[in-house]
Amino acid sequence: MARNTQVTADRNAPPVTQLLAEFVATQPGYLAGGWSAAVDHEAHRTFLNWFGCAIGAARHESVTCALAAIALLEPARQASVLGRDERVDMASAALLNGISSHTFDFDDTHLKTIIHPAGPVASALLALAEHRGFSGRALIDALVLGIDVSCRVGNAMYPDHYDRGWHITGSTGTLGAAAGCARLLGLNTQQTAMALGIAASQPIGMREQFGSMTKPFHPGAAARAGLMSALLASQGFSASEKALEAPRGMMQTVSTKNDWSEITHELGQRFEISFNTYKPFACGIVIHPAIDACAQLRSQGVTAEQIERIELKVHSLVLELTGKKEPTDGLQAKFSVYHGCAAGLTYGHAAEDEFSDEVVNRADMVALRRQVVATVDDTVDEASADVTAVLRDGRRVHVFVEHAIGSLQNPMTDAMLEAKFHGLSDPVLGASKTAAILQACWTVGNAADLRTLTALARP
Amino acid sequence: MARNTQVTADRNAPPVTQLLAEFVATQPGYLAGGWSAAVDHEAHRTFLNWFGCAIGAARHESVTCALAAIALLEPARQASVLGRDERVDMASAALLNGISSHTFDFDDTHLKTIIHPAGPVASALLALAEHRGFSGRALIDALVLGIDVSCRVGNAMYPDHYDRGWHITGSTGTLGAAAGCARLLGLNTQQTAMALGIAASQPIGMREQFGSMTKPFHPGAAARAGLMSALLASQGFSASEKALEAPRGMMQTVSTKNDWSEITHELGQRFEISFNTYKPFACGIVIHPAIDACAQLRSQGVTAEQIERIELKVHSLVLELTGKKEPTDGLQAKFSVYHGCAAGLTYGHAAEDEFSDEVVNRADMVALRRQVVATVDDTVDEASADVTAVLRDGRRVHVFVEHAIGSLQNPMTDAMLEAKFHGLSDPVLGASKTAAILQACWTVGNAADLRTLTALARP
Repeated sequence: MARNTQVTADRNAPPVTQLLAEFVATQPGYLAGGWSAAVDHEAHRTFLNWFGCAIGAARHESVTCALAAIALLEPARQASVLGRDERVDMASAALLNGISSHTFDFDDTHLKTIIHPAGPVASALLALAEHRGFSGRALIDALVLGIDVSCRVGNAMYPDHYDRGWHITGSTGTLGAAAGCARLLGLNTQQTAMALGIAASQPIGMREQFGSMTKPFHPGAAARAGLMSALLASQGFSASEKALEAPRGMMQTVSTKNDWSEITHELGQRFEISFNTYKPFACGIVIHPAIDACAQLRSQGVTAEQIERIELKVHSLVLELTGKKEPTDGLQAKFSVYHGCAAGLTYGHAAEDEFSDEVVNRADMVALRRQVVATVDDTVDEASADVTAVLRDGRRVHVFVEHAIGSLQNPMTDAMLEAKFHGLSDPVLGASKTAAILQACWTVGNAADLRTLTALARP
Repeated sequence: MARNTQVTADRNAPPVTQLLAEFVATQPGYLAGGWSAAVDHEAHRTFLNWFGCAIGAARHESVTCALAAIALLEPARQASVLGRDERVDMASAALLNGISSHTFDFDDTHLKTIIHPAGPVASALLALAEHRGFSGRALIDALVLGIDVSCRVGNAMYPDHYDRGWHITGSTGTLGAAAGCARLLGLNTQQTAMALGIAASQPIGMREQFGSMTKPFHPGAAARAGLMSALLASQGFSASEKALEAPRGMMQTVSTKNDWSEITHELGQRFEISFNTYKPFACGIVIHPAIDACAQLRSQGVTAEQIERIELKVHSLVLELTGKKEPTDGLQAKFSVYHGCAAGLTYGHAAEDEFSDEVVNRADMVALRRQVVATVDDTVDEASADVTAVLRDGRRVHVFVEHAIGSLQNPMTDAMLEAKFHGLSDPVLGASKTAAILQACWTVGNAADLRTLTALARP
């Protein structure tokens, strides 16, 4: 029997589906003055960082298993799986590259919302652009706009939406991917609204999946769903014109907090991609200041052999989240600030290799971890670390990191992003191919199409 | 920065992901005594009704548009789109048949939850079974189990989950489709738990989409996602083992009401497919008693020419939801109890044809609708209708329908389902092919594979 239940709802939301659709369809691109050179450079950094992460995890079992399932569909060879020889249909390529790019938890972060924005959007765009022959310029423009859509919707719903259990990267990523693909396809405002509407019925991802392959599946599935939403809209498929904001639309269904002004304020003037950050270290972000500090000790000439002990002062949250003193494998080490310190001092960095089981269990690393004495000091900010190396000769070397490298205040330089990229890609494709890819990524906005770049990403 | 917010959550849920996985993987099938002949017959009725609905809408623009988008992926020709010549990969076939089967709002209804259970589950199963050559028996067994999973999860979350905005058919359908496909693939308990876990991250569908093509997209997308979840699990892809019940798992994320006993009580003994119903009329269910009553008047010899007026007494809800006195097209007519009465008296039934724009605007139908005098009487139940035909010769003919045909109390007979099927399928495939399909559907549990049946469903 039909019901007639009234649930509390905001019936006065602005028409954000329509406003976002108009923005995506009509905002001038970069060459027409749509945004600043700084925003456009950040888009290139975002693309490059995402590309490296996708290549880096290309041989991981999450990608291998997903590819085996996709192979059962006998897909057409339309688009590339980065870092691999296989080619699949463009929707499956969006899925697989999205999975790959998030597998190491090493991708970009929009810190205001903890969204990893590139995975869903860039994965969808590259697959579509490669197959259809769109230009690099069109791709970068669509990336700026797609990421703006997902992050603005995220800003509106955060933190309630995240706190109740949604993996916000996947739940907003479908919208960003749909928006970006709609732009790339040249859809008009009405068609773009339909693309957003179809995508709005497909929020993806629960936080309970963290620690399983389904976590990186979320940005992949969002990429796929967003791409398909745009393709459906391009063929006349319809959705509600108020799919985002209506009382029984997506946003009110998945979040009790919806600050619509986060979507409408300075739309087309402020671009959320400007606030994107990149991880220098392949682990949870609260460990980063301590790793940074120990890497600085190493730069100052301090070696492991000299160490009597390392005195670490951090906010209580750091030990609460990453206080694993004796990790026994790579995954546990990602939650060990002790291992982070040991890696920073030994290597000067902490990429995926420094979180391998082998490195984690090496005798010198075990010994160094045991020399770290961590104490809680809540006068130290969560984003900071205070480290003193006490040497066998009695000397004390002190480093205080207020904002770790990779933060908005202290962003990774382009050179650091290149070094990170090499660390991810060299083991898969070799250093010389990797150098060529880096060059192609920095200039992707000038590329006639994406096929040269994706061809380089084959082993 | 990592957050540490605590949201109210039920941390004592039973391990329903595991329990459902074990049930799906280990419940004996029908031939091994897993359920009664009555349950198995209901499964055949569910399959047959779904098959007819999918054929009936095969030429609708919702299917044509979606197929045009899928064609852009150049899919392999693995499985059939019912009622059409095209063949696509099995995941796309699941999507398209799911869309088709829900396009006329004429499919089955699990009245306790308003779930339309067959769309997601049967669409996934037929595509998988056709391509992989599974038997009809295996398909029907998987249908019983898959529908049990989606409806039990629906029972646990209903009504909160629906009231907050979810189209419960799509949000629970992904789980049902994953469960059914896991069974069909012969996955073990652990793999089935992974299939359910992957599916749990992909609830699909918002109620705001009602009235657009994205409404029937929901069961289609759920079918596709469920099938892919099972294929991923079969290749070793992992998910949380508590993806349904954990504090940040699917059910607590999308519903504040979760009555876990609805999942665990009499699991393997009571089968929710027993409570499935089938619509005799192609419109909202509150109009059905009035149509039924007017069709009974017609059976008693009353004709439109004799009518002075029709006195209709119904519950206030009926006029609130379907009080459109002067509908101007087919869609409006689906919300007009007046048109329902006119169709019932004129045709004795009200299938998709009787809701065509042409019939709705015919002079005799307009005149007959105007002769209906509806009054609210809340002593009449929402599921009933009290109708009196006042004839030109002064006679009064009275019919009271307590439970309309198609309700649980007054189910459609097998012969009625066949007549409905002919009404849907004859215009697409012709009467003789339709008769052959009906025969094949009634005996599908004995079929060596599904390919004979799907071949019959080509024009």
